[in-house]
Amino acid sequence: MDFAPDATTVDVVARTQRFLDEHVYPAEPVLEAELAATPTEWGTRPVVRRLQGLAREQGLWNLFLPSVLTNLQYAPVAELTGRSPRLAPAAFNCAAPDTGNMELLTELGTPEQKEEWLEPLLDAEIRSAFCMTEPDVASSDASQIATRIVRDGDEYVITGRKWWSTGAMNPDCALLVVMGATDPTAERHRRQSMVLVPRDAPGVRIVRPLTVFGYDDRDHGGHAEIVFDDVRVPVGNILAGEGQGFAIAQARLGPGRIHHCMRSLGMAERAMDLVVERATSRIAFGKPLADQGVVREWVAESRLQVEALRLLVLKTAWLMDTVGNRAAMTEIQAIKIAVPRAVQQILDRAIQLFGAAGLSGDQPLAEMFAAARALRLADGPDEVHLASLGRAQLRRREGTVT
Amino acid sequence: MDFAPDATTVDVVARTQRFLDEHVYPAEPVLEAELAATPTEWGTRPVVRRLQGLAREQGLWNLFLPSVLTNLQYAPVAELTGRSPRLAPAAFNCAAPDTGNMELLTELGTPEQKEEWLEPLLDAEIRSAFCMTEPDVASSDASQIATRIVRDGDEYVITGRKWWSTGAMNPDCALLVVMGATDPTAERHRRQSMVLVPRDAPGVRIVRPLTVFGYDDRDHGGHAEIVFDDVRVPVGNILAGEGQGFAIAQARLGPGRIHHCMRSLGMAERAMDLVVERATSRIAFGKPLADQGVVREWVAESRLQVEALRLLVLKTAWLMDTVGNRAAMTEIQAIKIAVPRAVQQILDRAIQLFGAAGLSGDQPLAEMFAAARALRLADGPDEVHLASLGRAQLRRREGTVT
Amino acid sequence: MDFAPDATTVDVVARTQRFLDEHVYPAEPVLEAELAATPTEWGTRPVVRRLQGLAREQGLWNLFLPSVLTNLQYAPVAELTGRSPRLAPAAFNCAAPDTGNMELLTELGTPEQKEEWLEPLLDAEIRSAFCMTEPDVASSDASQIATRIVRDGDEYVITGRKWWSTGAMNPDCALLVVMGATDPTAERHRRQSMVLVPRDAPGVRIVRPLTVFGYDDRDHGGHAEIVFDDVRVPVGNILAGEGQGFAIAQARLGPGRIHHCMRSLGMAERAMDLVVERATSRIAFGKPLADQGVVREWVAESRLQVEALRLLVLKTAWLMDTVGNRAAMTEIQAIKIAVPRAVQQILDRAIQLFGAAGLSGDQPLAEMFAAARALRLADGPDEVHLASLGRAQLRRREGTVT
Amino acid sequence: MDFAPDATTVDVVARTQRFLDEHVYPAEPVLEAELAATPTEWGTRPVVRRLQGLAREQGLWNLFLPSVLTNLQYAPVAELTGRSPRLAPAAFNCAAPDTGNMELLTELGTPEQKEEWLEPLLDAEIRSAFCMTEPDVASSDASQIATRIVRDGDEYVITGRKWWSTGAMNPDCALLVVMGATDPTAERHRRQSMVLVPRDAPGVRIVRPLTVFGYDDRDHGGHAEIVFDDVRVPVGNILAGEGQGFAIAQARLGPGRIHHCMRSLGMAERAMDLVVERATSRIAFGKPLADQGVVREWVAESRLQVEALRLLVLKTAWLMDTVGNRAAMTEIQAIKIAVPRAVQQILDRAIQLFGAAGLSGDQPLAEMFAAARALRLADGPDEVHLASLGRAQLRRREGTVT
Repeated sequence: MDFAPDATTVDVVARTQRFLDEHVYPAEPVLEAELAATPTEWGTRPVVRRLQGLAREQGLWNLFLPSVLTNLQYAPVAELTGRSPRLAPAAFNCAAPDTGNMELLTELGTPEQKEEWLEPLLDAEIRSAFCMTEPDVASSDASQIATRIVRDGDEYVITGRKWWSTGAMNPDCALLVVMGATDPTAERHRRQSMVLVPRDAPGVRIVRPLTVFGYDDRDHGGHAEIVFDDVRVPVGNILAGEGQGFAIAQARLGPGRIHHCMRSLGMAERAMDLVVERATSRIAFGKPLADQGVVREWVAESRLQVEALRLLVLKTAWLMDTVGNRAAMTEIQAIKIAVPRAVQQILDRAIQLFGAAGLSGDQPLAEMFAAARALRLADGPDEVHLASLGRAQLRRREGTVT
Repeated sequence: MDFAPDATTVDVVARTQRFLDEHVYPAEPVLEAELAATPTEWGTRPVVRRLQGLAREQGLWNLFLPSVLTNLQYAPVAELTGRSPRLAPAAFNCAAPDTGNMELLTELGTPEQKEEWLEPLLDAEIRSAFCMTEPDVASSDASQIATRIVRDGDEYVITGRKWWSTGAMNPDCALLVVMGATDPTAERHRRQSMVLVPRDAPGVRIVRPLTVFGYDDRDHGGHAEIVFDDVRVPVGNILAGEGQGFAIAQARLGPGRIHHCMRSLGMAERAMDLVVERATSRIAFGKPLADQGVVREWVAESRLQVEALRLLVLKTAWLMDTVGNRAAMTEIQAIKIAVPRAVQQILDRAIQLFGAAGLSGDQPLAEMFAAARALRLADGPDEVHLASLGRAQLRRREGTVT
Repeated sequence: MDFAPDATTVDVVARTQRFLDEHVYPAEPVLEAELAATPTEWGTRPVVRRLQGLAREQGLWNLFLPSVLTNLQYAPVAELTGRSPRLAPAAFNCAAPDTGNMELLTELGTPEQKEEWLEPLLDAEIRSAFCMTEPDVASSDASQIATRIVRDGDEYVITGRKWWSTGAMNPDCALLVVMGATDPTAERHRRQSMVLVPRDAPGVRIVRPLTVFGYDDRDHGGHAEIVFDDVRVPVGNILAGEGQGFAIAQARLGPGRIHHCMRSLGMAERAMDLVVERATSRIAFGKPLADQGVVREWVAESRLQVEALRLLVLKTAWLMDTVGNRAAMTEIQAIKIAVPRAVQQILDRAIQLFGAAGLSGDQPLAEMFAAARALRLADGPDEVHLASLGRAQLRRREGTVT
Repeated sequence: MDFAPDATTVDVVARTQRFLDEHVYPAEPVLEAELAATPTEWGTRPVVRRLQGLAREQGLWNLFLPSVLTNLQYAPVAELTGRSPRLAPAAFNCAAPDTGNMELLTELGTPEQKEEWLEPLLDAEIRSAFCMTEPDVASSDASQIATRIVRDGDEYVITGRKWWSTGAMNPDCALLVVMGATDPTAERHRRQSMVLVPRDAPGVRIVRPLTVFGYDDRDHGGHAEIVFDDVRVPVGNILAGEGQGFAIAQARLGPGRIHHCMRSLGMAERAMDLVVERATSRIAFGKPLADQGVVREWVAESRLQVEALRLLVLKTAWLMDTVGNRAAMTEIQAIKIAVPRAVQQILDRAIQLFGAAGLSGDQPLAEMFAAARALRLADGPDEVHLASLGRAQLRRREGTVT
């Protein structure tokens, strides 16, 4: 259990921090201006492309790849990117859902799949979406997924309706990774497969964008509802083979969850910086907010939560690196549950301290709140994980002292 | 302490309930469609005007007026309107901030002010806004308000910057009730005055709309930042006289807070209905959500909270009716703090049960959440009231058994 | 829903308040001294008998009886007795479990049973216990109760083991109301019966006293584990007939629960008085505790909780009086869950404010905490009621606006 | 930040675990029996002395000493001793307050002081108490301590009243470490000194034992109120010199707090083991408790809390070892606040699951609850630390990413 940053980590963290200070924070108002200037357009804004160019030059690129950094090395970098969640992950080509899709293709893709999709994704030339959740079933129970993927000669025919396909409104989004049933009669966890579907394939219909607390995440590519109406792809577009869909989804979600948690802690730290700045400079009733009511206690509670949870995230990363994602299951579930809700509380307190400004677009707090709130549902509602974690404890009969 | 509904209440509640079922709920998708068709327009949509016509015909109009219903009679009506918060309050001409402004004009307006502003407001021909909060100071400390209202001959000259002027983006909004300092050297609570400013007066500049989470409340009139740049109004536009601003604001906020609480309970009940419907019909892992995890406990906790808090709201209404707003101060503070945060929790649980749908515009939950969250800041952050309530208790030395 | 105190209530509350001030509070240190002087003795102390004499003279006697006061009238009286929980309920002959047993005998007892047991109980000449919970089964599931009551000619033969028989260590305790199965093969809710068992019947063995957080409640009669080893009573000792046990238990618990809640609120008010006194007089770091940290917020939160919950208790009492215990089921469950846990929080905060003194016997707080904590388990753990309340809500499909 | 157990730790943890299994758990009912047999006696029971002999033989002795184990090495050992809090710490001679006193004497004692007091303490021949808190002042503000230590020739004369002197009822307690003002006019943190006072010195009067909830901790030595009435000790009995009292207290409390936290986690783990055992074996309503209501969620939440907080405790230990107690201040405060309250919650849930048995002496839960609850006040109420931690954050302007 050694969480100390090694030389690589120290270096990359320092460079990331500098990049944030020099390029990312100053770019935040630029993004706002670009969005205001093109309010109805979907997709990556120029400022992001400019940052991507700079980040790539400086070697701050695709750092999420296991071949580049271990989970433990990546953790503080990901946390830093969470401090500017609309710009930094995209700038470093480390934004979900592309990261998860790139990992899948790296690990499971055929040479053809890699050439066609992975390379341009790694170069940020295209974007991708992950199409799993469906509006008509409780998708936390993956066995209920109703989209059909039927083999017809050399093709798979895909029929179904997906939603919350994040990024799919972005015109740069060229690839949809689609989960559906190839054999609905198979054993629960062997029913599903994943296929790679070009977003411009005939029969793919982007129905509409969805909002999260009123945000459409327009710059990032939004969240789409998509109908697949007899969409045909070559059989070579299957990922890892028929019946592997559930296993792939599980494999994908482990790193996805820890990345979300890392970035969430970064959001919390950003909020705490803003709170300290506001509380020490804003005056009411004759003294700074810092000296009033429960402000000190809120700041202390937020610090407590972040410190304890960061250690749990680091331990999870270290376990994933040393014993594997499967053996780290309990810890992955634990942080999946504990981090977003704590960050939601921290952001709620920060909003309260900022007053109405905290609810508005003038501060990043309300938007970060929406993101943290959404994480309590992303990859399955917390309650599914909580019950699963509890069940696992109840099966074990001994205590744990490490 | 008699909260039993009298005959008037029973009648008006029944009619309101019927109106909701027959007209309001069916109008909800109509509003969505109208908003989707005119996404960049600000202001009241046709469906609202149609509902207003029907409500007025049925005598469900201006029920908030003390001359129409007492607070105790109005409470269950207001709660019902909260079940469809974007349509029902507006349909009945009972939406904030117009209600508060109409109350002020009714009570304090000169005959000329009433003719010019009150009559058209009561007829829903115009809308109004309340301009109190300022971006540059912590406005929970009213003595900090920096807008100046300087007498110059027969005119007042107004200079300052306000924000969160709810409704002011609506082109129908004709009246701004503006608070500012007429005598910054006076005793703290005598510095401020209120003047009536036509929205089209020279020097009034609507700077921009603000968002609450990502919602702009476009149909209602949004929340504006407004600059007053040497705006001139006749001296007859002052409300109640110089130095009365603070007292007026206090008087206005009492009923405002209880109305907010009543409607919030209606939002909670609507959410609970949706939860029951969803939990009993949605299947995961082979059984309805209602039979899983913590759903029963959540439903029970939400019911507990609503039942206890509704009684506290009713008691507050009854106190306001019988001993007056000032004597009901502790209770008004208590519900101001307790109701929105409980409703926020209830909505948070409802969203969680609905999964990602709960975050989107497909359900009213996320938008109601944003509204409840905002109430924890509206009329001063809860913490100011909590500290004030605690201080009052600590000054009193005896317990209370009623 | 009229909770206003009528003339009877105003009168009896005033007299109760006066009795507390004049007799009960001054008797608290006397009880401590008497207990210190006879540390190993079980049972009612002289000071309690003296108070009983005074209370009876003043007509403050057996006020819990439905024939004396309605639930709504009794509520504020019971709350007041909760302010001195070790003395006042006993002084007024209104202490559990005797109250519940007296109610049962009043309603269901035969003339012989009334003469033998009810009369001396009403005169406080004897005390009684209620023997329901068993150590070997989860007794919240009443169908699991394993004690057997077998008819043998003109006698019932009782065999089993009970615990948490409150009051049974008191030598004055003459009557045990025992629940057991007369027909274990009957339908779930018809298996059980209740019989009246003299505590000195052959075969009754008081095994040992139990403690609650270290407290043995020695003055009150403690909590006993009791073995019934072929105990024989005449068939005339059955209460209401064979198979009625479950129904009787349910009937008994409704009023019992509301009485517990009322007294709990009194404990909370007492704690809040102590907190106000302490916070305004104790100095640390140069100013009173009242001006530090979170004290104001704690006081306000406690006040909020008590005000809302008292109204819910009053509504429950009013429903029990007007529509009956069965129709008030949801409300009874609601207060059973909500009141003790809120009071536990209030007491926890009070202890924290008092520092180590709050944990000790120098203040009544720790002992009241233990009592409130125990109520979360008494008459079934809260979670059983919470799930039941949730289930009932999920069965109903419409909302409630009163 | 390397928390991995080294070879020493692995070895001592294994031996401690074995000792618990073989000797300590079986001794728990023996202690109960010995206490029941001598209910009015204060002091160490024979079973403890027997365990001490065994532990010493096995080298499990005085492990808390920095010269024996580092904080990081000691942490898992201390956690294990917390699983049987009345026996294990005493068995290993690692129980508070003796540990803190032994540390002080080791570090600051003169050769004479060491010979007279430290040697017999290290051999468990005598016990000691720490006399700091006073009944008449809020002792969290150390500058208020009123006990006077006045030099008179070759002696110090001590006058004052202390309470919560843990262990001082034990007849084996031979040493009182007493804090008092030598120079009340000095700078706040230079007023106090500490002197070593034999418990049998003339003028020392043990006034009475105090209880925590209803527990007197009779076997351990209880918690005493003590009057010092012109008690005289040689000037050589001062610890570290005049004016050092505050600094010594601070130095003593750092390790004390982390030890308390470690043991608390052990209490939580013990409770969780009991919960798993109970939930999987106890049946109600036809199925094990493990399959009902919120049990799984409770178990999961408890696991989450313990895992995150243990890491924070380990980090604190590691910081104390590597950068010193002073630099670890934030973390020491953080765990002081966060651990006991989490453990209190875990125990509260465990009690609830056990039903009334959880409140009684039949399970260790209620007594452990009282201990965890007391820790929220020991060494200053959490709120003092929370405000201090918050203040420190507000003074810092930069975020922390490690």
